[in-house]
Amino acid sequence: MSVAGLIAGARAGEQRDIARLISRIEDGANDAREAMQALAGFAGRAHVIGVTGAPGVGKSTTTSALVTAIRARGNRVAVLAVDPSSPFSGGALLGDRIRMQQHATDEGVFIRSMASRGHLGGLAATTPQVIRVLDAAGFDAVIIETVGVGQSEVEIAATADSSIVLIAPGMGDSIQAAKAGILEIGDIFVVNKADRDGADTTVRELRNMIALGQHDGWRPPVLKTVASIGEGVDAVLAAIDEHRTWLIGSGQDRRRKLRRVHDEICALVIGATRAQLSVRNAEVDALSAAVLDGAIDAYTAAEQLS
Amino acid sequence: MSVAGLIAGARAGEQRDIARLISRIEDGANDAREAMQALAGFAGRAHVIGVTGAPGVGKSTTTSALVTAIRARGNRVAVLAVDPSSPFSGGALLGDRIRMQQHATDEGVFIRSMASRGHLGGLAATTPQVIRVLDAAGFDAVIIETVGVGQSEVEIAATADSSIVLIAPGMGDSIQAAKAGILEIGDIFVVNKADRDGADTTVRELRNMIALGQHDGWRPPVLKTVASIGEGVDAVLAAIDEHRTWLIGSGQDRRRKLRRVHDEICALVIGATRAQLSVRNAEVDALSAAVLDGAIDAYTAAEQLS
Repeated sequence: MSVAGLIAGARAGEQRDIARLISRIEDGANDAREAMQALAGFAGRAHVIGVTGAPGVGKSTTTSALVTAIRARGNRVAVLAVDPSSPFSGGALLGDRIRMQQHATDEGVFIRSMASRGHLGGLAATTPQVIRVLDAAGFDAVIIETVGVGQSEVEIAATADSSIVLIAPGMGDSIQAAKAGILEIGDIFVVNKADRDGADTTVRELRNMIALGQHDGWRPPVLKTVASIGEGVDAVLAAIDEHRTWLIGSGQDRRRKLRRVHDEICALVIGATRAQLSVRNAEVDALSAAVLDGAIDAYTAAEQLS
Repeated sequence: MSVAGLIAGARAGEQRDIARLISRIEDGANDAREAMQALAGFAGRAHVIGVTGAPGVGKSTTTSALVTAIRARGNRVAVLAVDPSSPFSGGALLGDRIRMQQHATDEGVFIRSMASRGHLGGLAATTPQVIRVLDAAGFDAVIIETVGVGQSEVEIAATADSSIVLIAPGMGDSIQAAKAGILEIGDIFVVNKADRDGADTTVRELRNMIALGQHDGWRPPVLKTVASIGEGVDAVLAAIDEHRTWLIGSGQDRRRKLRRVHDEICALVIGATRAQLSVRNAEVDALSAAVLDGAIDAYTAAEQLS
């Protein structure tokens, strides 16, 4: 089917056409470009919710519980699970989507795992494009689930309108990781598995860390959930609503959407540079040998490719 | 001091000059270029050993034990601890270098934590340059310690001559992570904390996974250590020697060094693109607004920046 046909189907809410359109965008720059040109001017309506955290913190469970809560309001919701694929194997860190299967037969829910390979500009460019498709398809909310490790995942999480950072009680190294990369991007913090020992300590530590940070008028709340039994999930949804209201009232909503487009454009430019390097691979190899043999230095080699 | 003066000092083994030279390389492209031009033609002699694994697996302890073993042979060794700094805070995942302090007064050991910020091309470009400096300074071995999470860290680990992947018994999610990104880059696998339950099971699982993989003439061994008491570390060093002998005999040594230079050159080209985008930030902002308002699409915007 043509890209235009798929877009028409996607806008009519056809799940299969949405899925095909996303595959086309992931597969090839030409189809992605055609789709983006067709969707240019389509005003954003969906609220983009990021769910991130270290492995084992309960991201899929929380996402699933949020989907249930959003559906209970009668809203439509899409989930993008961003897999940081290995550059070596094509394997993925994430995988267990089993919990999401309870939503598989619900026409108001769309679930998609995303790969990082293939597309010009990688996930940083693909994710905003896929969000645009889902937005055009009329979803009220788009949840992006990412593993909160690695710079590219943090960057993707940072493009959400509302970022939820999950922490498990007493996670040690994971909290360290969260401190470093994730603390700054969280709009809402959720201590999941709050029935475990140390939950209140973790909540307190997070509140102290947040109090030390700088805030642009929104002070991130720290909530507790036991997502596996749905406990506390309504409060998370209420915090998302409150954050959205603040975003729109403060003008931050447009600022965040601008930043998302900014990142997308830069990712496309860098993707084009990478594609060029790939095309000129033999030339890079020859220059590498010259550098290794001491004939030139790496900067001179890089300049010859610019 | 001039870059040339620092290079002379570094080649004479002056620790302070080595440290200053690395700082200059991290800080600014001009000094890095001058240093690389001066060092072009300096033949590589140091063996580059990667040590990677998930947080908590014992990377610093193992690195420290390897340093002790290498020093016992009378060889000089440098350690680069690569911190995947947060793009938001400048904070770092790693931090605890305390165990390394026993080597602090040893002139035959050089230890350095590296940051990812500032430098044109990021860690992917800086790491090979710093290795070149340490090589020129006469170190027999350079150990690069990285957290084995995130694509950029995997890429850096992949640039070592011999990559050691650490696994702890029964680490669950971490083993999953290892499977995805790290399994393919390991030349030597080490199950550390082997006095814990499940060590033999983990060894068996790893051997099975490795047996399923493709090998280019080197079959990665799986060893057991208790690095905190030095147990098994000599066997790891022996495996590194054996791997190095194989690398040189098979021609893989030059192939790996070529790949390292190749990656460095590409990182510099991409870094130059990023620098250009940064200079043209206002222009990218204007184009972002045009995309958000539907006047143009992101691809057209990206083309106007090429």
